[in-house]
Amino acid sequence: MNSDLTKFFYPRAIAIVGASTKKGTLGYELLGNLIKFGYAGKIFPVNPKADAVHSIKAYKNLLEIKDEIDLAVIMTAKQFVLPVIDECAKKKIKSVIVITAGFKETGDEGVTLEAELLAKIEKYKMRLVGPNCMGIVNTKPEIGMNGTFIQGTPHPGGIGFVSQSGALGAAVLKIIEQNDIGISQFVSIGNKADVSENTLMEYWRDNEDVKVITTYLESFSNPAEFLKIVKSITKHKPVIAIKAAKTSAGMRAASSHTGALASADTVASALFEQSGVIRVNTVEDMFALAKAFDRAKLPAGNRLGILTNAGGPAILTVDEAAAAGLEVPELTEKTVSKLREITVPEASVNNPVDLLPSATAEIYGKATEILLADKNIDAAVLILGPPLMMDTVEIGEYICRAAMKSGKTAIVVLMSQDEIIPKLAKRVAGHPPLFNNPEKAAWVIGQMLKYKEWKNAPDGKVKLFNINEKGVAAILERYKQKGDFYLQFDEVYEILQAYKMPIVETKIATNVQQSIYSANELGYPVVIKVYGRELVHKSDIGGVVLDIKNDDELFIAENKIIKGLTERNIADKCEGFIIQPFVKRGNSVETILGAVRDPKAGHLLMFGLGGVFVEVFKDVKFKIAPLTNVDAKSLIRGIRSYEILKGVRGASGVNIDFIEESILKLSQLVTDFPMFTEIDLNPFVFTPDKKDCRILDARFKVSL
Amino acid sequence: MNSDLTKFFYPRAIAIVGASTKKGTLGYELLGNLIKFGYAGKIFPVNPKADAVHSIKAYKNLLEIKDEIDLAVIMTAKQFVLPVIDECAKKKIKSVIVITAGFKETGDEGVTLEAELLAKIEKYKMRLVGPNCMGIVNTKPEIGMNGTFIQGTPHPGGIGFVSQSGALGAAVLKIIEQNDIGISQFVSIGNKADVSENTLMEYWRDNEDVKVITTYLESFSNPAEFLKIVKSITKHKPVIAIKAAKTSAGMRAASSHTGALASADTVASALFEQSGVIRVNTVEDMFALAKAFDRAKLPAGNRLGILTNAGGPAILTVDEAAAAGLEVPELTEKTVSKLREITVPEASVNNPVDLLPSATAEIYGKATEILLADKNIDAAVLILGPPLMMDTVEIGEYICRAAMKSGKTAIVVLMSQDEIIPKLAKRVAGHPPLFNNPEKAAWVIGQMLKYKEWKNAPDGKVKLFNINEKGVAAILERYKQKGDFYLQFDEVYEILQAYKMPIVETKIATNVQQSIYSANELGYPVVIKVYGRELVHKSDIGGVVLDIKNDDELFIAENKIIKGLTERNIADKCEGFIIQPFVKRGNSVETILGAVRDPKAGHLLMFGLGGVFVEVFKDVKFKIAPLTNVDAKSLIRGIRSYEILKGVRGASGVNIDFIEESILKLSQLVTDFPMFTEIDLNPFVFTPDKKDCRILDARFKVSL
Repeated sequence: MNSDLTKFFYPRAIAIVGASTKKGTLGYELLGNLIKFGYAGKIFPVNPKADAVHSIKAYKNLLEIKDEIDLAVIMTAKQFVLPVIDECAKKKIKSVIVITAGFKETGDEGVTLEAELLAKIEKYKMRLVGPNCMGIVNTKPEIGMNGTFIQGTPHPGGIGFVSQSGALGAAVLKIIEQNDIGISQFVSIGNKADVSENTLMEYWRDNEDVKVITTYLESFSNPAEFLKIVKSITKHKPVIAIKAAKTSAGMRAASSHTGALASADTVASALFEQSGVIRVNTVEDMFALAKAFDRAKLPAGNRLGILTNAGGPAILTVDEAAAAGLEVPELTEKTVSKLREITVPEASVNNPVDLLPSATAEIYGKATEILLADKNIDAAVLILGPPLMMDTVEIGEYICRAAMKSGKTAIVVLMSQDEIIPKLAKRVAGHPPLFNNPEKAAWVIGQMLKYKEWKNAPDGKVKLFNINEKGVAAILERYKQKGDFYLQFDEVYEILQAYKMPIVETKIATNVQQSIYSANELGYPVVIKVYGRELVHKSDIGGVVLDIKNDDELFIAENKIIKGLTERNIADKCEGFIIQPFVKRGNSVETILGAVRDPKAGHLLMFGLGGVFVEVFKDVKFKIAPLTNVDAKSLIRGIRSYEILKGVRGASGVNIDFIEESILKLSQLVTDFPMFTEIDLNPFVFTPDKKDCRILDARFKVSL
Repeated sequence: MNSDLTKFFYPRAIAIVGASTKKGTLGYELLGNLIKFGYAGKIFPVNPKADAVHSIKAYKNLLEIKDEIDLAVIMTAKQFVLPVIDECAKKKIKSVIVITAGFKETGDEGVTLEAELLAKIEKYKMRLVGPNCMGIVNTKPEIGMNGTFIQGTPHPGGIGFVSQSGALGAAVLKIIEQNDIGISQFVSIGNKADVSENTLMEYWRDNEDVKVITTYLESFSNPAEFLKIVKSITKHKPVIAIKAAKTSAGMRAASSHTGALASADTVASALFEQSGVIRVNTVEDMFALAKAFDRAKLPAGNRLGILTNAGGPAILTVDEAAAAGLEVPELTEKTVSKLREITVPEASVNNPVDLLPSATAEIYGKATEILLADKNIDAAVLILGPPLMMDTVEIGEYICRAAMKSGKTAIVVLMSQDEIIPKLAKRVAGHPPLFNNPEKAAWVIGQMLKYKEWKNAPDGKVKLFNINEKGVAAILERYKQKGDFYLQFDEVYEILQAYKMPIVETKIATNVQQSIYSANELGYPVVIKVYGRELVHKSDIGGVVLDIKNDDELFIAENKIIKGLTERNIADKCEGFIIQPFVKRGNSVETILGAVRDPKAGHLLMFGLGGVFVEVFKDVKFKIAPLTNVDAKSLIRGIRSYEILKGVRGASGVNIDFIEESILKLSQLVTDFPMFTEIDLNPFVFTPDKKDCRILDARFKVSL
């Protein structure tokens, strides 16, 4: 299928099927917007009953049009949509926007209609935006297309925005207009029957007009594909996303630790983190950040200069800068003395530089220049508090021009003076980002730095270990039945052995004599655990005894377990005993490493410390498989208790390289064998020496 | 001193000393604002050179005025301020605002001038707002006083705002004007030489015009007083605060655990939490919340209804509601069928109710009524997404009127339609709070609920235990020297005994024979620790040996310690050995309980779990002494590892009542003896049985 969306964004001729002469209808307003915004191509209204719409000759149907049509915008009643698609095919139109609603979003009948629509689109090898959407905008002057029915006039700029919600898209167009935000391309994808966020991402990856990508999503069309595509973008262009519906129905009930800890939002978090998407929670934050990426350079470092004419806003900026990981360093002596020359004696000439309310446009301009020239400063927030009886636009202009000359990252803040922003924007072409709130500016610079770190970080590779894949395949082939079930411990043991993962040495015995023999072979002290296909939660049924020191104790322990099972009426489920060495927990840390399969995103790997760290603090992190070495490192370093792995209170740290290796092996295992739906390696004990690290227990659930 | 500020806010006659005929000066603008805003009293400009200012007869000096003056606003050059104060005294003016800058904020000379100013104010028993401030506003129509030089026209309402930053105050007046926020009284307190945030809080506590108190602070004038005053307000009126300068220079270098963990922001956090102040980080959040408190009832419960005409904004609201602790419940069948009757078939008639973009004003009005009448709903966010070609103000009006009829908590959201807000506000008197962002509305309702919980929570009492205070006084009286030093362990032991706190049984021995005798008396196993006034960090110098099982081991251990001290050349500092039983850590939790004295706020008590919980997670909390039982409970429950105290993984919980008792005793101790600057009870081991709980080590630093 053709993944080129050029004809949607750069059409030379558009047919509006369902163009209307009736004011207030979508078919009237959309056409009006195209004309008002100055669309540079040709428009062909299609309306069987009208001679002209908005003074443009109208056609009865698409086939009446002689010119070649790049894009059809369909806004007829829903029963006419499919016949119009057939007409498009005859007219050789390959790009279609269906504005019309009444499809999947309205229930069963609509679902069927949408499926029919999509089938036609695929049959004709067309591409479809919508249905149930608001249209497309491309502000590029050579195109000048506002192909939506929303009121307003978006400014040109470098931001691409794709919205799953029409209403939110409309709100965004308003915010853009009010806040000096320059948009390049805007798409409301509606039900995303065909063109999805992924299609757009792929298209924008190589589109030079779009410098920053923003998106509002309620669901992922294909998370695995999203990860792949977006990862290839974020090292070159920032991608900023809102993912709503965090709290909708969670994953299906899971019985493993890993499964139970994954929530509805886990996939989105992992996806964004691994692909370098900057996640925000509000439209305001998204466009504040996008505006900065569009209009300012990435900061060279984290040292922030602050210029102000009032103390309060500067103090709030310092607080936010600290929270955002920025420094507010001392200025050089040279800077201080230069500032001293131009300011009133009461002014504060160190960082934050406070010029006091009497500062004129000229002083502000010079101070901006001096501050940004300081070698201790990488970026600046230039605050203009509400000045008294002065021309704010003029002062703003001096600040902007000085900031532009310096070439460093700068944000100009017109404190609570929303009405000044569009005036100043109009006065100074190519101005730095203009904000109305200094804290937001500091936050934005912090986010830009984080993005830069991501951009500069190594890409990471999926490392493949030399393991015995066939051994695992052989185990799974033994099963003839279908369904979901747990593997037996001996099978789990074999699988982990096959992947060279350090499962604790284990013997299985079916009677006391065998048990005693095995225990002596392993050497006391040992642990015994009841063994049986249906006995999964062994501790809960009194099926585990630790630190058994000799034959007598072993005998007593096995009898006690059997007695407990008998009382529970499940003695017949016991197929024997697992015997393992009792590992002393000296300089070691108990962790949990697991995997759970999400129906859409594939396997999520989880890592965290065991015990209270997982149970009380829920201090675990997830990543989507297959993990790269960079992902594995970040999985380990992302938990709050990471310091414990490095060693605290005099303890030497555990072997973190080996944790990384173990994570990557588990990732390889679930990638090789996607039928494993839940895996817990718990506890997985790590020590300073790789050869002492052990998985003490493991559970595998498969779906065959 | 007179703490009544009535004449500042309700003056019948104001003298403006320094009134000016020159446009653009503060003395011209402030007087102009008073007139423009419609001040209901008399204005007397004072200017030695002018006949009239703003067409009002001007006076050469205050004494020329025959009428009685309630309030003098002084904005002369700074060298004339003190003489004018003398004139005020002669004229019997008791309330003075000094707008003039150039005092404490400008360095040494200014500090002296401000001290002289304050001395005069105190001598004359006046009250002073300022210097270096922006003035006072009271919007009450009977007063109509805009006594600031800031451009703008604040709306009347129930919010009181006191700002330590003038610029921020000015920004706030702008935000207020743009966002339909109704202010009652506004004060810029500048350098707060006399009238501080505390004076205002006390005054507003009983002022009926002020229903919600808001404040921006950079420093506390008197934290202990703040705590006392504000605690007496928040159960009746909400207080919302921004405390900036979180990251300024921290507390002085501290050597104790407790001291090291306290940061510059610890006092503010503890203060706000204990006094029930709602802390926010931005001016936007402060006034969003204040507006809601002013215009809406407190919600009866946490069940939120959402009404919308578009999916996206509703989904974002659901996400934020979950984060804010709100439920979005199913509606009753009755509600659903009533909604079904009035909506289009495609509409979603369960919560969130989505009327779709075609919804008219009438449908919106009825749906609002039906939703709010549902018995499953306590509060509602009523969202109006940008509608297409409809009269938004009219729809808004129907929503507002229906919401007002219901009497439940409701917030109306005009999604990204800032320009509609003032229009709608004007159209509907007494309208519910109007927002432009649905997430903020959900957050606000969550905050209102939290405030309600605080309001309904018991007040708490400072419980006093029957202890031996004199025993402690006697120890301190032994010291003749002045200065800061650590107490000896035997003294610490005595103090804790005196306060009936369970310090582990301890013997002090000065030779091996005594040690062996003591160890046998206590019973093995024992712990020994080196003893000596100058040997504070015992572990660091190898001065501690645990789990000594018999006389031989004891002998070896003491020799080893002495050898270590000798190698360090400090053997002469050893005054003997501390012998204690070695306590087995069965079903127990190690905690740290401490206190540190802040120069302004008094003692902060700290509690948290020991080991990695304090070292890695910094999971501790602080409260200001004296603590009530409610404070102690919240100190314990406020740490993240609280669940561990309650018992996890099958362990029974420790005696939490006894933790509370211990915290209250430590609070009583530092209240009785403020000379204790740092106390660490670390580890303090708690067990299920009160009688097994023990303080294993303790350090006390005094400042005499």
